[in-house]
Amino acid sequence: MKEFEQKLSSKEILEIVGGELIQNKSVFINSIGDLMEADNNSVAFYNDEKYREKFKNSDAGLIFIPSDSLAEDKSRNYIIIEQPYYAFLKVIDYFLKSEKRNKIDGQLIADSAGIHSSVKLPQNVKIGSNVIIGKNSTIGDLTEIEDNTVIGAKVGIGSKTHIYPGVIIYHDCKIGDRVNIHSGTVIGSDGFGYLWDGKKQRKIPQIGRVIIEDEVELGSNVSVDRGALGNTIIREDTKIDNLVQIGHNVEIGKHTIICSQTGIAGSSKVGNNVTLAGQVGVADHVTIGNNVTVAAMSGISNDVPDGKIMFGYPATEAGKQKRIIASMRSLPKLRKILRRLQKRIDD
Amino acid sequence: MKEFEQKLSSKEILEIVGGELIQNKSVFINSIGDLMEADNNSVAFYNDEKYREKFKNSDAGLIFIPSDSLAEDKSRNYIIIEQPYYAFLKVIDYFLKSEKRNKIDGQLIADSAGIHSSVKLPQNVKIGSNVIIGKNSTIGDLTEIEDNTVIGAKVGIGSKTHIYPGVIIYHDCKIGDRVNIHSGTVIGSDGFGYLWDGKKQRKIPQIGRVIIEDEVELGSNVSVDRGALGNTIIREDTKIDNLVQIGHNVEIGKHTIICSQTGIAGSSKVGNNVTLAGQVGVADHVTIGNNVTVAAMSGISNDVPDGKIMFGYPATEAGKQKRIIASMRSLPKLRKILRRLQKRIDD
Amino acid sequence: MKEFEQKLSSKEILEIVGGELIQNKSVFINSIGDLMEADNNSVAFYNDEKYREKFKNSDAGLIFIPSDSLAEDKSRNYIIIEQPYYAFLKVIDYFLKSEKRNKIDGQLIADSAGIHSSVKLPQNVKIGSNVIIGKNSTIGDLTEIEDNTVIGAKVGIGSKTHIYPGVIIYHDCKIGDRVNIHSGTVIGSDGFGYLWDGKKQRKIPQIGRVIIEDEVELGSNVSVDRGALGNTIIREDTKIDNLVQIGHNVEIGKHTIICSQTGIAGSSKVGNNVTLAGQVGVADHVTIGNNVTVAAMSGISNDVPDGKIMFGYPATEAGKQKRIIASMRSLPKLRKILRRLQKRIDD
Repeated sequence: MKEFEQKLSSKEILEIVGGELIQNKSVFINSIGDLMEADNNSVAFYNDEKYREKFKNSDAGLIFIPSDSLAEDKSRNYIIIEQPYYAFLKVIDYFLKSEKRNKIDGQLIADSAGIHSSVKLPQNVKIGSNVIIGKNSTIGDLTEIEDNTVIGAKVGIGSKTHIYPGVIIYHDCKIGDRVNIHSGTVIGSDGFGYLWDGKKQRKIPQIGRVIIEDEVELGSNVSVDRGALGNTIIREDTKIDNLVQIGHNVEIGKHTIICSQTGIAGSSKVGNNVTLAGQVGVADHVTIGNNVTVAAMSGISNDVPDGKIMFGYPATEAGKQKRIIASMRSLPKLRKILRRLQKRIDD
Repeated sequence: MKEFEQKLSSKEILEIVGGELIQNKSVFINSIGDLMEADNNSVAFYNDEKYREKFKNSDAGLIFIPSDSLAEDKSRNYIIIEQPYYAFLKVIDYFLKSEKRNKIDGQLIADSAGIHSSVKLPQNVKIGSNVIIGKNSTIGDLTEIEDNTVIGAKVGIGSKTHIYPGVIIYHDCKIGDRVNIHSGTVIGSDGFGYLWDGKKQRKIPQIGRVIIEDEVELGSNVSVDRGALGNTIIREDTKIDNLVQIGHNVEIGKHTIICSQTGIAGSSKVGNNVTLAGQVGVADHVTIGNNVTVAAMSGISNDVPDGKIMFGYPATEAGKQKRIIASMRSLPKLRKILRRLQKRIDD
Repeated sequence: MKEFEQKLSSKEILEIVGGELIQNKSVFINSIGDLMEADNNSVAFYNDEKYREKFKNSDAGLIFIPSDSLAEDKSRNYIIIEQPYYAFLKVIDYFLKSEKRNKIDGQLIADSAGIHSSVKLPQNVKIGSNVIIGKNSTIGDLTEIEDNTVIGAKVGIGSKTHIYPGVIIYHDCKIGDRVNIHSGTVIGSDGFGYLWDGKKQRKIPQIGRVIIEDEVELGSNVSVDRGALGNTIIREDTKIDNLVQIGHNVEIGKHTIICSQTGIAGSSKVGNNVTLAGQVGVADHVTIGNNVTVAAMSGISNDVPDGKIMFGYPATEAGKQKRIIASMRSLPKLRKILRRLQKRIDD
């Protein structure tokens, strides 16, 4: 359960989510929770038969339900609405936004922040303690940069972007609007490129940039390398989970979901609306089309056309891979059968 | 070899570990090492035949041995004790604790630490440079928080806990007593949840917490996400290695060992006394029972009952998986045999 | 494309790289780029037929080419040289070094750096904001330590070493000359060792060190654990990518390449000139010889002799593993054939 500072009446919530209100008693709502933890001042939702018991025993002061036939208990209030879970998310968003709105108003700059004199700060911005911002970097309006984050020189950061504590952004990178970057994430470290000259590993200079477009979210402890010559690009509305590796010159499309601990090697391209599940590996110089899904722990070493569902390592179409796995499991048995057959024929 | 400031006589060490002392000459001990690197002022241990030569040539001033028959070399001192390695660890602990004991005495707060005025510090505490502690957070007695660590608002941290430099703990998380958290670890970053609404990836708010119970240890660069609504929980005495991913709403039992680079996806449950070896993947909404062992690089996508040993991806019972792998290795041969058989039958 | 502050004439570039200059018009060069993005003041290179069109349409002011037969377009300048790409890298290095050379001249110490009074700084050194350097640590000449990095007590850092922002180095570690360490990397965190005593996971003290030799590069968010008793060692000129795990007491040879998200468990040894591709797992107490290559996502659980190419999990020689995978893919078909055969024989 989560409490908020703001209090809302049932009617105010009705205005936020729509639907039909059944008011049995007067309450105010300042928290949200699941059916069991919710109390008299909480909103909760019910949309699945299997939680029927929890629904019956809930103390929630307001419950979103899909049908008025459920509104038996007259000690509670209900809003009848087609998609109770969406309505619930809307209320959470409303609470969070009103808290956030209070947060950034004017320039709130910690004394210990080290901001280069060339940086022109916007009208509304929040910059935490020990934040460093390098020469000629720009920060958009209503952006928050939290404690102990380091931003190099000539970095561009858009508006309404939220950078959590302890993020490192190297020089010359570009971050869009409404981007979230979680703690421990490093953007713009050198790509991994060396040439063996017979005596030493000679470093190939990494002088490109990283471009992160609007509404991207990066989890914690992610590494995004800068391009060698060109850029590493993550397009709008793509979401990347914790501990993911994005190699140099990788290009990732829009609305793509990349789960934790996945790694994409240098110069590979990932399309739009792709899902890479956890711990996937993508080799270098590979192109993955749009609307592709790759199952967890799979390894992609060849191009994947649009719309495919891939599984295994080396990854195969998921249906085929499942048949291979089923066969593998019967393999010790097959082996026995084969030997017996051979014996019978030999006899 | 590791030297300490404190010096101990053989008799003082006897008091710490027990056993029987054979004193051949007067020494003081202020270092520990393995048999080869140990010198006249070091303690070492011998408990395995295969290190016999090293034992014979060791210069150690004091050696823990399992039997008096080994005490031939009269230039050295011995303590005869059933478990020499345990005794050795006890001495290391003793040295380390006496050094540690000197460390936290009163309030040692770096001038550059930014501690919110609402935070009431305990009598004995050590807080490093540039540490940030947010509003209404609490810190237990004898806890140390090292340089450049950031602790959000309303975080509870127990006593005798050690947080290394550069850790990030988000708001509202709870850390128990005698917990160790290594550098670069992030606790409480947002869980990874989005709904595709046909146009955009819509973020599911992540407003739960992380609860880490007593005596947990977290390695470096670990990511532990906060719960979406409820909490992510790591129970007492569980130990987590570097670069591990713990998804939102995961619950991990007591005394469990999770090796490096393992990832546990959202809402999964791991029991007590479980061992997950390195680079294991656990899918979301899976339950792993107590006393389960999962071999390295395995992928768990279904529930695992108590006591099982699992291996492979998709993980199977280890014995069965080993037979499958053995069969796989003979597969090219089996294929040939089958073709030959077919030909003979066709003929 | 990357611009630099320095401007060079074609003749100055000729002096840097050698070869033969064909000068068609007067230009100065202050940027580098690929053929398409290069402009009148850029140098580019051409060494592959498949980029012929791009070469023809390039606006580059100077192009490195392998043969004078290519110098048709008289609006451009050329340097004819055997290895155009190497020449190109040389020019980049020259630009980068001249910028770098300007960077460290005297002691540039940020006011907010917290350097212990026992640390004697060299004549030329750059230490960023909020950097912490502990008691009795040493820093070599011409070394740069960037913002918010934390260096513990008794750490030795060589000369011309570059430590990026937000790195954590624990006490007693040793870093060589000309080492690069990228952001978020943690060196010297405790190794992962516990003994189950029937009631609790008892921590095995981790009191060894980490030794990183000259010209090693470590990517971002890498974890290198200190030795339990002895040391964890990474030998000269070895390059390690992002998010790699190096366990306690691991020893890695010279000139070795370890790609992203690979993990090496405790006490394992990796030889010289080895390549471990991405997401490889190496079990504990394993020895990998010199000149070994391990394919991506492979798992090494046994010793590997010099010169082998390994693939799969458990890893097998690559040629054999490829045959196994080919057979696996035909496994569902083999199964059908076998069943049909059996039926025919039964009939």
